[in-house]
Parts: sequence; C-alpha cells; structure tokens
Amino acid sequence: MQIDETYPEPIFDVAQLASVEMYSPKVDETVWFFTELLGMTESDRVGDSVYLRAYEDWYHHSLKVTFREEPGIGRTTWRTSSPQALRRRTEALSTHGVRVQWREGDIGQGHTADFRSPSGHAHSLLWDVDYFEASDEQASRLLSRPQKRPLKGVPVRRLDHVNHLVDDVTANREFLQDTMGFRLRENIVAHGREAAAWMSVSPLVHEIANLADRTGRSAGGNGSLHHLAFWYGFPQHLLDAADIFTDYGLTIDIGPGKHGATQAQFLYVFEPGGNRIELFGDTGYLIFDPAWKPLTWTEQNMDKSLIWYGSPLAREFTIFRDPVPA
Amino acid sequence: MQIDETYPEPIFDVAQLASVEMYSPKVDETVWFFTELLGMTESDRVGDSVYLRAYEDWYHHSLKVTFREEPGIGRTTWRTSSPQALRRRTEALSTHGVRVQWREGDIGQGHTADFRSPSGHAHSLLWDVDYFEASDEQASRLLSRPQKRPLKGVPVRRLDHVNHLVDDVTANREFLQDTMGFRLRENIVAHGREAAAWMSVSPLVHEIANLADRTGRSAGGNGSLHHLAFWYGFPQHLLDAADIFTDYGLTIDIGPGKHGATQAQFLYVFEPGGNRIELFGDTGYLIFDPAWKPLTWTEQNMDKSLIWYGSPLAREFTIFRDPVPA
Amino acid sequence: MQIDETYPEPIFDVAQLASVEMYSPKVDETVWFFTELLGMTESDRVGDSVYLRAYEDWYHHSLKVTFREEPGIGRTTWRTSSPQALRRRTEALSTHGVRVQWREGDIGQGHTADFRSPSGHAHSLLWDVDYFEASDEQASRLLSRPQKRPLKGVPVRRLDHVNHLVDDVTANREFLQDTMGFRLRENIVAHGREAAAWMSVSPLVHEIANLADRTGRSAGGNGSLHHLAFWYGFPQHLLDAADIFTDYGLTIDIGPGKHGATQAQFLYVFEPGGNRIELFGDTGYLIFDPAWKPLTWTEQNMDKSLIWYGSPLAREFTIFRDPVPA
Amino acid sequence: MQIDETYPEPIFDVAQLASVEMYSPKVDETVWFFTELLGMTESDRVGDSVYLRAYEDWYHHSLKVTFREEPGIGRTTWRTSSPQALRRRTEALSTHGVRVQWREGDIGQGHTADFRSPSGHAHSLLWDVDYFEASDEQASRLLSRPQKRPLKGVPVRRLDHVNHLVDDVTANREFLQDTMGFRLRENIVAHGREAAAWMSVSPLVHEIANLADRTGRSAGGNGSLHHLAFWYGFPQHLLDAADIFTDYGLTIDIGPGKHGATQAQFLYVFEPGGNRIELFGDTGYLIFDPAWKPLTWTEQNMDKSLIWYGSPLAREFTIFRDPVPA
Repeated sequence: MQIDETYPEPIFDVAQLASVEMYSPKVDETVWFFTELLGMTESDRVGDSVYLRAYEDWYHHSLKVTFREEPGIGRTTWRTSSPQALRRRTEALSTHGVRVQWREGDIGQGHTADFRSPSGHAHSLLWDVDYFEASDEQASRLLSRPQKRPLKGVPVRRLDHVNHLVDDVTANREFLQDTMGFRLRENIVAHGREAAAWMSVSPLVHEIANLADRTGRSAGGNGSLHHLAFWYGFPQHLLDAADIFTDYGLTIDIGPGKHGATQAQFLYVFEPGGNRIELFGDTGYLIFDPAWKPLTWTEQNMDKSLIWYGSPLAREFTIFRDPVPA
Repeated sequence: MQIDETYPEPIFDVAQLASVEMYSPKVDETVWFFTELLGMTESDRVGDSVYLRAYEDWYHHSLKVTFREEPGIGRTTWRTSSPQALRRRTEALSTHGVRVQWREGDIGQGHTADFRSPSGHAHSLLWDVDYFEASDEQASRLLSRPQKRPLKGVPVRRLDHVNHLVDDVTANREFLQDTMGFRLRENIVAHGREAAAWMSVSPLVHEIANLADRTGRSAGGNGSLHHLAFWYGFPQHLLDAADIFTDYGLTIDIGPGKHGATQAQFLYVFEPGGNRIELFGDTGYLIFDPAWKPLTWTEQNMDKSLIWYGSPLAREFTIFRDPVPA
Repeated sequence: MQIDETYPEPIFDVAQLASVEMYSPKVDETVWFFTELLGMTESDRVGDSVYLRAYEDWYHHSLKVTFREEPGIGRTTWRTSSPQALRRRTEALSTHGVRVQWREGDIGQGHTADFRSPSGHAHSLLWDVDYFEASDEQASRLLSRPQKRPLKGVPVRRLDHVNHLVDDVTANREFLQDTMGFRLRENIVAHGREAAAWMSVSPLVHEIANLADRTGRSAGGNGSLHHLAFWYGFPQHLLDAADIFTDYGLTIDIGPGKHGATQAQFLYVFEPGGNRIELFGDTGYLIFDPAWKPLTWTEQNMDKSLIWYGSPLAREFTIFRDPVPA
Repeated sequence: MQIDETYPEPIFDVAQLASVEMYSPKVDETVWFFTELLGMTESDRVGDSVYLRAYEDWYHHSLKVTFREEPGIGRTTWRTSSPQALRRRTEALSTHGVRVQWREGDIGQGHTADFRSPSGHAHSLLWDVDYFEASDEQASRLLSRPQKRPLKGVPVRRLDHVNHLVDDVTANREFLQDTMGFRLRENIVAHGREAAAWMSVSPLVHEIANLADRTGRSAGGNGSLHHLAFWYGFPQHLLDAADIFTDYGLTIDIGPGKHGATQAQFLYVFEPGGNRIELFGDTGYLIFDPAWKPLTWTEQNMDKSLIWYGSPLAREFTIFRDPVPA
C-alpha cells in the first residue's frame, strides 16, 4: 500500500490538564464552596494558598486557591505524556521564541517549566507529580477511585478544563497548536473574527478554550479567567447542584443547559470569591476521528453553539458583551 | 532539567475502533433491533450484509451485520492516527511474525490490512474511511452531530467497544500491547490466572476487552464474541432501553448496573440474532494519567470488579462459567 | 377524645382531569408533534377533530385536537369520583347560579355536564368513560400500562394539568374551590393582586392553574390557554425532548428548569399549531398534609416561584407581560 | 341524567402515612445511616428513641428509631383527613370488633387511637400533629420545602410507604379496606393464594403493602417488617445511593431496578440495625381513575411484577422464600 509520508502527524506530547491556580479575595468562603458544596478534599495549606482535589483526581491537588484582592486565574499546569515529551515541548517553546523558566515545582509537583502564552496567561509543563495517598478510612474498594466518594454536597469527580479570556483568540489558539500540539475542535468565527476556540490533546473536545475578551481586562498581558470546569458525568448532578446553589444563596450564571459546541450539559455558578465555575454534567461528545476537521460556527448559528437548549445567555456572558457594561 | 531518555514512551498509532462485523442467523430481526429499538440508520446492503451506524458515528458504518448460521463476531477494524501510523503498525505486526494481508477494503473503507490475533479473531487496520453524508432533511443544526437525532427507539450515539472471548487472556493482551500499542487499564487475575483485561489506546478505559472463555468454543483459533457495546452517555437511557426491551420481549442478560472495572453504567441484552449487546450509559471514568498503573482485581474482590452495584451476574456471564468457584 | 365537628371537611368529588380539547390552525402538524415527537397514539378522527392519548392514559383519549383558525383551548373535562359525586357537583354548580347543560357526551365519554367558569372557559363533568382497549400486539406485559411503551420520539406518559389564562384569578380560583372542591396549594399575590393560583383535588400540586392574563385576549368571557402539560416522571426526558425539539426546529419557550411553585422540572415548547405545551419531568412534590396551608409568593420572591433554577423567563411568558407586546 | 345511587363510594378518611417506628439493636449506627447517608435530620431524643425526618417531611418526625434487641417495626401511624374522619374510622374499627385505645400521643403528635391489624401490627390514627419549625439558618427560600436541602449524603425527601410481612395477606388486606378505606391497587395471587397486596388511600399505588411471610416469624400476632421506604423522585439518586452504600460497606439487598407492580424505581439496602430500607427513585405511576380495577399478577407473570427490569431477586427476598416454587 502507498503511504503518504508527508501527512502531518499529530503530536501527543501533552497528556492532560494537571492543575489550575485560582485567585480569590475570600479564600475561606471559596474553600467552603469547593468542600461543602462540591465535596472536594483539602490536601494542604501553604502560605496564602489552599490545595484541593476532587475525589477521582489522582494527584496531590488539581486546584490551588490563592489569596488575591481580585478573583482570577494564576497558573495553568499541563502534564506531558513522558519525560521526553516534556523535553520536546520545552524545546518547541524555545524554538518559537518563548521564554521557558524551570523551577523546583509546587508542593505535590516535580520540576516545572513555566512560560506565558501570548495572552499573558501563566502556563506550566511538568512530568513528575505526587499521587494522593488515601488513609485506610478514606480508601475505596473501587480501584479506579483514589478515595471514597465524599458524603458532602454534590461531589465533583475531577478537574475538566479551563477557559481563558484572551484579547486575540487566533493568536493564542495558534500558539497552543504550534507549541503544545493542541488540536482545534470547534470555534466561532463571527463577522470575520474568531470569538472562541475549543482545543484538546485528547478525545475531550477541550481541555482549554479561549474566549474573546471584550472587557479590556485582558489587555496588557494580564490573563483572565472565563471559567474553570469540574466534571460529574451525570446530568442529574447539575440539577442537584443548581438546587443547592439556589437554596444556599449562590448566584447561578446560566444553566443547567446544553451547549451546541462541545455538546456539554453545563451549569455555571459564581463561587463566593467571584470566579465563574462550570459544572460539566455529562461528557458531551468525544472525538476519536484522527483526521477531525474543526467545526466552525458563525454569526448565523453562534447562538446554537452556545446554547443548544437551556437558559438564554445572561448579559454578563462575556462573548456577548460588546460593548460591555461594568 | 535531567530527562530520563530511557522512559518507555507510549505509542499513539491506533486511534479508534472503527467498525465491527457481527454474525447473525436472523439478519432481519437483528436489523429491526438496531434500527427500531436502538435508532441506528442503515447505510447499505451488500450481499448477505447490512451496514449500520449510530447517529453520532461519523463514517459510512460502524456495524456490519452478516448472515451466518451462528451468531458471533467477524472482523474488528481499527483506524490509525495517520497513514504513517498504519505503516508502523503493520511493520510491527510483521516484526512480531504476524501475517498481514492487504486488500481493497470493505464498502466505505479504504486499503485495509488484515491479521489475526493469537485467539484467532480477525482484526484489520486502516487509515482511509468514507464519511457519512447526511441528506438535507437528515442534517442536524448541531455541527458535531452528523445527522439529526433519530425519533426511533432509544437511539445509541456511537460504537464504543468490543469484548472478545479468548482462551488465553495474557497472550492476547500482550499481543495487543506489543503490536498495536494498547495500554492495559484494568484486569482480573484470579487464582493466578488472568481472567479479564481491559485495554485502550485513548482515555477510554477500553476499546477492547478480552475475557477468558471457559466454554471451549474459542479453542482452535475461532474467536468468539462476548459482547459489542454502544454508547449513550446518559444513564436514564439504560432505564429507557431496559423498559422497552422488557415490553417488547427481548432478553436482558444483566443490568442496568455499574461495573467496578471501567465504572461503566451497563445494560446487557441479547439481540434477536443471539449476540450479547452492551449499552453503555455514561462514560465510566476516563484515564488521563500518562503513567497509569493497571488496576488488578483478584479473586478477593473480583465480584466488585464485575458488579459494583446492580444485578448479580446471570449464570451465563462467561467469566463465571465452569469451572466456577462456589 | 374531643372531636371538632365544625372542622370544614374537604370535598373529594372531583377525581381527575380526564381530557382537554385544544384548537389548532394546523391540525396535521399538531398531530405530527404529538405522535412523532411525543409518542402519543391516535384514537379516532371525527370531523375536524383528532383524538389522542398518551401510553399510560387509560381512557379513549385525553387530548382532542380540533381545527380552528386560532390556537387555544376548548373544553376542560373532569371525571368525578363516583356517580353520586357527579350529582353533588352539578347541584353545587346550580346552587351557585351556574348554568349546567347535560349532553350525550363526546366519543369515548358518557353523559356530560357542561358549564363555564367565570373566565368563560368551557368545563365539563362526567362519570362514564370508555377505556382504551389495546390490540394483542399493542398490549403490554406491564399490567399498569394500557399499551406498550411506544418506540417513537420521547413518549409522554399521561395528561397532567392545564393552565388557563384568566382575567381575574381570584374570582376563578374561588369558583373552582367553592363549586368543585379544588384546594388552593400555592399562589402569587404581587402588589396586592393575585397573579397565579395552583389548585388540585389530589396530592398533585395542581390539575389546574389560573394565570393572570394581561393581554386582554381573555376579556369578554373567551377563555384562553396558557399551557397544557403532559407527564414524564423522568427529568432526563426533558433533556431528550429539548434535544429533539431543537434538532427538528421547534421553538422552545423556556426550560428545561425547575419551578419554585410546584417544584416541577419543566420544559415549555410551542407545538406547530401555536399552543404552549409543558412537559413535566418529575412529580415536583406531592401534598399529603390534609390541613395544607396555601403557600403564597409575593413580589419579593415571585421570581423564585417561577424559576427556582434554569432559564430566565422569556418575554412572552404571560405573567411578566404588563403591558404586553404583540 | 340517571344517577346510580347504589354505587359504592370510596372513603377518603385516611389521608397519609404520618410516621413509622422502627426497632434497631444498634441505634447509633442506624441514626448514622439515616443522617449521614440519607441526609435526614434528628428532631428529638427521648429515652431509647431517636426521632428523625426527611427534609421535605412537614411534621415533627416521620421516623422513630427505638432500641430493641432485634430489628423490626413498631407502630405505623396514619393521619386522617379531618377530625371527623378520625371519629368515623375509630367508630368503624369498633364496629368491626377491633379494640381501639386512645392515648395522649407521642412527642410531636396529638391524641392517638391505637389498634392492631389481624397480623398483630400496631397501627395508630391521629389528626393533630406538630409541624417542624426551621431555624432561620435552616429555612429554605423554596416555600414547599420545610428546610433547606441538606448537604449530607444523598438526602431523601419524605417517608413514602411501609411494607408489612403478614401471615395472611387476604385477611389483612380486607381489614385495611373495610375499616380504613384503603383501596386495593395491585396484588399477586399465586397458586390460588394471595401473596402480596399493594393498597392506598391516595393516587400513590401504595402507602402500605402486605407481603406473605413464609418464615413463620409473623406467626402468633407479632407483626414484622419487610421494608420501610423513603422517596427521592429522581432515579439518579438511586445510583448515587447505591454507589455510596457500596463504597461505605453497606449491604444492598436488590436494585437499582424497576418493579412491575407499582412501576417503582427501587433500591433495597439493609441499614446497620438490620432493617430493609427501600429507596424510591421516581413516583412509579399514579392512579387517578376513581373506578380503578385492581391489577392481579399470578404465578404466570409474578416475576415481572417484582422485577420489571434490574437485578433478579436475592434469595432472602421473602416472597420467594421457602417453600418456593421452581
């Protein structure tokens, strides 16, 4: 058989979103939200930071909450698929003229390579991680569950993805594709401008999305957060979460509903520190086609990309702000 | 940073389970089952075979039903992640002394490399596939849906995985790992013998499982089928399917319930042709840890691996067949 | 023990909502909606009317669709709990000065007593009904299911309730309480005016609701319809229905979401004839307390009464129209 | 119109199952089960008894757990629909030659009439109850929710029904029909003997069931418990409950699955004190037909009455206990 040896092979060097650092002006209330309502477990506290993980997260932590005067996103950390893959990706970054800085690594994480995306968001790459060790009482009989299912709130199972607000979606998307091997899965191009891009290194539709920020807040290299998402796998849990959020006075942004892009069953809520948190109720759809052609929504059908069914978008959903109220 | 360049990097050459051929002594009734109860669409009929796909399957077909006097499995077809990956895997097969035969390919599929696993199951590798083209009326406004959601039965969304009955789980598992790059995710080793192995090339826990066959039917190189699985993503659909199966006189094998291994929400039913079909109600859990250590169940906790909760196993569930410990 | 013999005992004479007649300018498309998307079965066609029932409705029909130039509601028919109860209720109507007219009854229904509520809506009371008789092939092995679960669409199980738009909620509510024995379960009193009332004769929170009509359409004794509701019992079915409604180009009004009043998991869609249809995804809550005190929402918390979580109300949701756009 | 004045009108004097007393040899562990896993709230402790309620139970308590050496059922308490109804039912009991004893009433309950059914089970009738009063912090913004949804375990919403093991189903069923006004909804008559009866005073298929006890334990007038059931309304909660029961080492009896009789989505678990507890995942079906004809299952289809789908019955499910037909 005749093989096309010029076919551009995919890069499989980045394996997963390992952890995200989130800023909160109200760390105690933010931690209350994640532990009492979302059933997460506190792993550690160091300085101004609290480390947390969901009950099916395997490592020391997947979320780091750090005190800051304003909510927002700190570092987005990726684990590579091998030590060699870590080398290859940092080399690729250097080749692209990106400055990479190595350091010892955060608690629970080994040597880490730090860099910034064009939008100014802080990213890291690493290979070595510490695994969570359950106590005898915490240990589950379910081998694929690093600890028993918690009895608090509506417990999330794992960190799913992050959505960065950026000033230039195309530039940031191309950067992630070229240096890290992300594959573009879906995007919105409205009136000739790329307004959103969903990218992944796995069959998930996205581990990271970039959303056009029309607030100006992202200007000047200070990355900001649209949302951070945790995974349930069961749509009813969105209803349960929405029920307790309403009962306990939290502010639901939008949902439950279903996105067109990603097909996710979604629910967005503001945690007490002011960050938008998405809860992901199913798996949306998974992409196994190795020759996937990105799906592009336009101004003609953009509304269905955001809301296939469920609540209409609230004003403050950034992608629809133009110009933006305070 | 010091990189361990000797780390055994994973192989990403096999991308997905593309299609499975299933034998049925009652093709019409089998097709009725898949179209009227599971909402699949008929793509083609050629000779003794009917080609079908689920509404979120992207290619010409994912299931081929062929007439035979006895139910069973025909060919298991895998798509590689690139043309070069196809070359590399066929080379690896040859290096392992496996005979690879190229042919034109089935309808909807391009050049195909056929080979047999140690158990005698027919496998194929290919790169080129034909995509399903929806008519205007069939076309969905949801870009990630190759056709509208059907209005028949409880429609499945895509082919998920296949489970082969084999005489020697270890030999077949090692073959799939060594030649195709499958990664062992979970297995059962009872009384010193490997009774089941779940393997994948993606974050899915398995695209293929091997189950020890104690019936003798698999002896002599004639592979047999434990089950073929289709995916819903919503646990309620298992309840809906179980409801109509009971109402329309189908025989449910076991379920709905939850497996320990894979964490799948499962339902097993016998289609009219006599094959066991699994319906997969959620996504179980997904594996993103690139250094995943296989989870091994033993005779101590094997029962929980098969049934975390839900119906106890029926007798005929092969893994418990003779000789079965009390 | 000392018994308070003056306690006002409840009246149990009206047993259930038996059927509703709905007007449609597009009968064929309306019937397509109810049969292909909601899995209802056509029982009969007489003149301009088509008779339909859900698969767990026991009688000849629960829905009658009649051609009219404009969408709207025809007759709302109640079954009493005994023949004597029918006599008592018609006597009570007469005592209240309401004109009652007896007639033979519609197809599938026996002697019927017609009357109008203050809002001008046509109501009927009856005792005799014809039961649906399944053919051998239709018959279910599930004794409580008058026919097999249909294999079309997302099949509704039974008629649940009706919501009448009225000019004067209080007058109509008191009429239903005084003559028919309805019990007030919840209401909204905003700025001193009763804007909505949910009433029932059973543990359901309502078989009928009255909603203030600010459109003027209800003036002059012509009752109009806010919505007619059918029951699923499974919240996932709302997601399934919303999915196919979007895929097949129907217009979802609001939802899926959860009401505060009634706690219903709801989804509102416009059928092709222009009537708003509610799908009821669970049972909300049930009222067993015989001394139930009506729950009153006010302008302070009315928003939570309508939407506990889920989509914000669309403009056209009548209760928020004041004044009303065309 | 001609009214049949001889039609036997239904009796609506018993309104609901108000509370059940359950015996436990391990009160602390039983209370742990109900509070930590099922999210119930402790109302009071008096002597050897702990009083509990679910978060949508309106009264002081719905469950009383009392220390005894053996698990089992104490008193089953019914609330009437009016004070007069209480008088009428106690008079009917006396007329039937049943001894009725009045007493002050338990904590949270007013004057109570005690009596025993033929099986020897202790029953009570009452009218006066104390309502639960939420603290400011407990109070929900959802008016139909007497307290916020708890953040513990998978919280049940209300007491649903009780199932008594009796030596003579027919005698007990007729007693409940004749004296209390229960209506027979479904039953099993196998080999000429009534093996089970589901009865209700409301559209629920049952507030009480009687199951034939072949263990002999019920002989001699000592009533025993088959199970006590609490309600969710959402089938996913059965999956969630089954998941934590397995993870925390509880013993699931059978389920999740769907009964034919009642159509209930069920899950049976043994609480640490040894009582079988049913969790009810949906509402099954509701009966609004005032002329309901009881549905009778026989030895031909009894298996479908018990398990429409889901796990086959475990040995110890009493109805299948010795002597069991093949």
